[in-house]
Amino acid sequence: MIVEMRTRATQKEIDSVVNRARSLDLDVQLNVGTDKTVVAILGSNTGQISTDAFAVLPGVESVSRIMKPYKLASREFKPKDSIVSIDGVDIGGKHVVVMAGPCAVESEKQLLEAARIIKKAGASVLRGGAFKPRTSPFSFQGLEKAGLELLARAKQQMRLPIVTEVVEPRAVSLVSKYADILQVGARNMQNYALLTKIGKSRHPVILKRGFSCTVTEWLTAADYLLAEGDNQVILCERGIRTFEDSTRFSLDICSIPVLKRFTHLPVIVDPSHAAGHYSYVPALAKAAIAAGADGLLIEVHPNPKEALVDGLQSLTPSDFARLMKELKPVAEAIGRSI
Amino acid sequence: MIVEMRTRATQKEIDSVVNRARSLDLDVQLNVGTDKTVVAILGSNTGQISTDAFAVLPGVESVSRIMKPYKLASREFKPKDSIVSIDGVDIGGKHVVVMAGPCAVESEKQLLEAARIIKKAGASVLRGGAFKPRTSPFSFQGLEKAGLELLARAKQQMRLPIVTEVVEPRAVSLVSKYADILQVGARNMQNYALLTKIGKSRHPVILKRGFSCTVTEWLTAADYLLAEGDNQVILCERGIRTFEDSTRFSLDICSIPVLKRFTHLPVIVDPSHAAGHYSYVPALAKAAIAAGADGLLIEVHPNPKEALVDGLQSLTPSDFARLMKELKPVAEAIGRSI
Amino acid sequence: MIVEMRTRATQKEIDSVVNRARSLDLDVQLNVGTDKTVVAILGSNTGQISTDAFAVLPGVESVSRIMKPYKLASREFKPKDSIVSIDGVDIGGKHVVVMAGPCAVESEKQLLEAARIIKKAGASVLRGGAFKPRTSPFSFQGLEKAGLELLARAKQQMRLPIVTEVVEPRAVSLVSKYADILQVGARNMQNYALLTKIGKSRHPVILKRGFSCTVTEWLTAADYLLAEGDNQVILCERGIRTFEDSTRFSLDICSIPVLKRFTHLPVIVDPSHAAGHYSYVPALAKAAIAAGADGLLIEVHPNPKEALVDGLQSLTPSDFARLMKELKPVAEAIGRSI
Amino acid sequence: MIVEMRTRATQKEIDSVVNRARSLDLDVQLNVGTDKTVVAILGSNTGQISTDAFAVLPGVESVSRIMKPYKLASREFKPKDSIVSIDGVDIGGKHVVVMAGPCAVESEKQLLEAARIIKKAGASVLRGGAFKPRTSPFSFQGLEKAGLELLARAKQQMRLPIVTEVVEPRAVSLVSKYADILQVGARNMQNYALLTKIGKSRHPVILKRGFSCTVTEWLTAADYLLAEGDNQVILCERGIRTFEDSTRFSLDICSIPVLKRFTHLPVIVDPSHAAGHYSYVPALAKAAIAAGADGLLIEVHPNPKEALVDGLQSLTPSDFARLMKELKPVAEAIGRSI
Repeated sequence: MIVEMRTRATQKEIDSVVNRARSLDLDVQLNVGTDKTVVAILGSNTGQISTDAFAVLPGVESVSRIMKPYKLASREFKPKDSIVSIDGVDIGGKHVVVMAGPCAVESEKQLLEAARIIKKAGASVLRGGAFKPRTSPFSFQGLEKAGLELLARAKQQMRLPIVTEVVEPRAVSLVSKYADILQVGARNMQNYALLTKIGKSRHPVILKRGFSCTVTEWLTAADYLLAEGDNQVILCERGIRTFEDSTRFSLDICSIPVLKRFTHLPVIVDPSHAAGHYSYVPALAKAAIAAGADGLLIEVHPNPKEALVDGLQSLTPSDFARLMKELKPVAEAIGRSI
Repeated sequence: MIVEMRTRATQKEIDSVVNRARSLDLDVQLNVGTDKTVVAILGSNTGQISTDAFAVLPGVESVSRIMKPYKLASREFKPKDSIVSIDGVDIGGKHVVVMAGPCAVESEKQLLEAARIIKKAGASVLRGGAFKPRTSPFSFQGLEKAGLELLARAKQQMRLPIVTEVVEPRAVSLVSKYADILQVGARNMQNYALLTKIGKSRHPVILKRGFSCTVTEWLTAADYLLAEGDNQVILCERGIRTFEDSTRFSLDICSIPVLKRFTHLPVIVDPSHAAGHYSYVPALAKAAIAAGADGLLIEVHPNPKEALVDGLQSLTPSDFARLMKELKPVAEAIGRSI
Repeated sequence: MIVEMRTRATQKEIDSVVNRARSLDLDVQLNVGTDKTVVAILGSNTGQISTDAFAVLPGVESVSRIMKPYKLASREFKPKDSIVSIDGVDIGGKHVVVMAGPCAVESEKQLLEAARIIKKAGASVLRGGAFKPRTSPFSFQGLEKAGLELLARAKQQMRLPIVTEVVEPRAVSLVSKYADILQVGARNMQNYALLTKIGKSRHPVILKRGFSCTVTEWLTAADYLLAEGDNQVILCERGIRTFEDSTRFSLDICSIPVLKRFTHLPVIVDPSHAAGHYSYVPALAKAAIAAGADGLLIEVHPNPKEALVDGLQSLTPSDFARLMKELKPVAEAIGRSI
Repeated sequence: MIVEMRTRATQKEIDSVVNRARSLDLDVQLNVGTDKTVVAILGSNTGQISTDAFAVLPGVESVSRIMKPYKLASREFKPKDSIVSIDGVDIGGKHVVVMAGPCAVESEKQLLEAARIIKKAGASVLRGGAFKPRTSPFSFQGLEKAGLELLARAKQQMRLPIVTEVVEPRAVSLVSKYADILQVGARNMQNYALLTKIGKSRHPVILKRGFSCTVTEWLTAADYLLAEGDNQVILCERGIRTFEDSTRFSLDICSIPVLKRFTHLPVIVDPSHAAGHYSYVPALAKAAIAAGADGLLIEVHPNPKEALVDGLQSLTPSDFARLMKELKPVAEAIGRSI
């Protein structure tokens, strides 16, 4: 941590910074410049100390962090790529994994049809929401437990691992019985009670990026899962909120190489929620693979026109089949398979 | 809802839009222009219908909403200002209510001292966090149940109503026993499981704005509380996330008149979390009152230099006392008291 | 344009909306709903009329646009893709065009070396700034006229068309003598005096996206060029400003398919300015091609360590050569060449 | 500047950082920590050196600035508040100055009527645009020279100083003949050719904040004016672009105390462009004064319903007169007059 003192800071003020650092078992080095003094505070745990600890002291102008606030998710902690294995499907390896299915589980017919379609087209994980966090209380909130049971049936019939969202701590043990991978939605990325409960379950989990959280905050949220011993964590970029209004969110494509630099965790991309419109999904899916994503999470519905939730961003079966064919050469172009 | 058809949309495509509207019991009016046809879909419940219901149909170019997606929080639903009364303190009336106290409850001594200070300076509600949602799992997470008991003691000794945060559905009944007002933090504004549980409790609640949620999304989240029968809802503006980095968040001062136009719910402002730095709090507090806020939520610590959480944004006792004196003429200037 | 009247709007208020529309030679259709009246205002020129023309009238609640505010840049105006041809290089066709070179022209040696490197690696246009708009007045502002002359020499020796920035109306005729393509920087996207001057020159031009302008505003700015008769306009996505701070800007990858849907103009991508760091450039360049970009604008410096401007985002010669090899299979994967 | 080396940086890499600093005549201090080495680079001119100068060197992980990049605009350079005096009107002193008038000069009748209204209500500077930078080339672009002459007439008749916008370098000398204060619009905040030309003219100038520029970038742009010797610079906050869409922009109210901390320049606020809707202007105007603004720039039109530009954000004469009365006690509440 770098503590910049005010131009006319007194020796006593500088001393109080030094003393606080020492009381926290940190190393201190003074840099006395012509205009101002800068105190460098060093030590491997400075990332976990609040900058406020120093910023509140008199005579301090600013405090900047050098160490990242996350630890277990960092490449410094674990240099080698983590691979999450689900029923023989490796996420984070050379193969790009496609997870697909409807936004919400609506009926047995709809789900089984979706499962058949996506498996035939080459996807290897089935997605479908049983609990739906909806903006309005007057919207369809999902089939809940009945939806989980339909997912179990689809899994059995189609032999596809299942990913589904869990929206509150109380439901973690229930959903874990049905889901091969739990999903934490964007609105829950900083729901620490939920993260802690999932972390303790040690279940595989997809942590979606909060739509206005920085990469650093996202990795710090992942630390909540990792700190409880859950090391089967997959990150999912799904777009951030910006001023641009032609798409629902703005896919932060550069988060992929940034994450690859700073974390060992696998990274997948959800082009459907980012775009909010089916016609943009193919371009985003290809871009995500080209940029190095380890997988995709795509909404597919047997009949988007009749979807109860987010039909506009769902691909039709034929559009999805065509996209899967188009993704193959893109993955191969960068030395991967799909 | 206004459905814009593509330039060369067929009659069949237009008919399918009309039929869907009718199947949802909505009125339809066709506007046939020289370039394109526009279908107006009218009816008092269109606010609660997803635009996707029409956007997915073939031949549709775009769908725009006319009715707001929220209902119970709207001024159209309830034109008169709501007032939330807590132990004789009216929030939403002519008097501007100040809630103050430390970010986190740290000890009996700290809390009682804070309570004495803020009461003496003229605040009428004591704030203090027992459960702290922290960005990093390695940071202090609050005293939890012991913190609630300290709050109860402070309440009894100082005769001040208490506001404290609740972070998960399971804790609602426990925290409600101690808190006069529950607080939903910014990161939980769209935690619908939590909102539903609080709504059912019908406990007074402060709903902080998610730091990247629009005013419309905020009022729609308030509908979750109101739909369960909880009509003691207070909104709290606490800054939004923008590109500006000289402050922690950007206080959206204009949300105050916007809310006053569209909702009947009282609105308070938290200048401390918006600014992230004590030196900016007085200017923001004055601006909030001048813009029409019904109250303030301010962090005050007996000794910010030793605060365990957010010390940099806490006012010292003397700064708070001075601010309270400065706020009085500002409130009077716009015809209110404080 | 859709004019929503207030719930209790009078007949007189509705009439004044209708009369204003008619006075502007527009068609009007009334939609009388149970709750409120909605006036649809139709006609092919409504995109160029301000929503304020109706929003200011008494009894009006809101006004929404249906027609886009841009016209000449739209696919409705010109359905077929535009191709800009520069010295036999077609931008907007099947071949993906790479423009590369140093951020700033620094010396004859640097520029010629850069030109040799990028030509050998397969780029077909040389970029280099002679006039540099810099954030601080105390930074290097470019070689100005001497820089243009070095560009002319490089063009002659290496037979590469030149793209360079023009920063003020007065300089348009001078820079046009040297540049095959003029560049309008992000900070000048809405410098209408500059756009009008360039438009009149009918010179080929790259219009970079303002870093906080929407796609709609960008296309409306392009209309300034097109309206003067300049139809050799290339759009360049270079990242938008968001809250994310791990990269300098956030590349809005989805703007590519959005632009392909709404405009006929060719679209290129500048991954260097978006990322702000050389290590992220390859991932972004591949993603841009996969998403459908017609070209790339990449910073390459013979020796980034000694660059006077933006060295951190410049590729070294060997990194650039490697990237060009890696881009080939990506372009082929989507049926294009590079 | 603080240069953080990578964990396993070599001595040679550290040396190259030290050598570069010395070659730039800067002081260097090494901080060797257990995990990594941090190089502090000190000297009063480090603010004007690009961080890239060090970030490009091998073995460097990150570079953070300590000194601000602006210099002449800083309080460190000039601790005492600057006051800009125009015809006996002091901007930046105890009196809050109100500048008001129509967005665009439309006719002699309109302008003189506006001038009379605002003078009578207590405003002391007349605003009105003769050159209008408009988003679309098909919109009204202002009366240009004829508009300037109408401003001159209004000035003479009403004895009010004039502020009007200048949009290109070529027009600076012309507009300076008519305007007491030049205005640089938000879209031109980083139009350095324009800033340099105005700076040389040493004319009083209002520098509006670019709608997505940070406070730091804004003050660095002010340095362009100050560096040319123009020290009559007034800053104008007019809202920033965020995701919130209920207002045209989000007024960054906290920029006022931030500017008061870091710069000596006077600060005014334009509530009209921030809100985009007349009904929010009074709340924002009061908030701005309460937060410490030195003045206001407000749009007033004799008949907003007939305004050619931005009628929706213009106050009517009676609304403006009422607002001026309401502002008086707010200014007095914080110890100022208006």
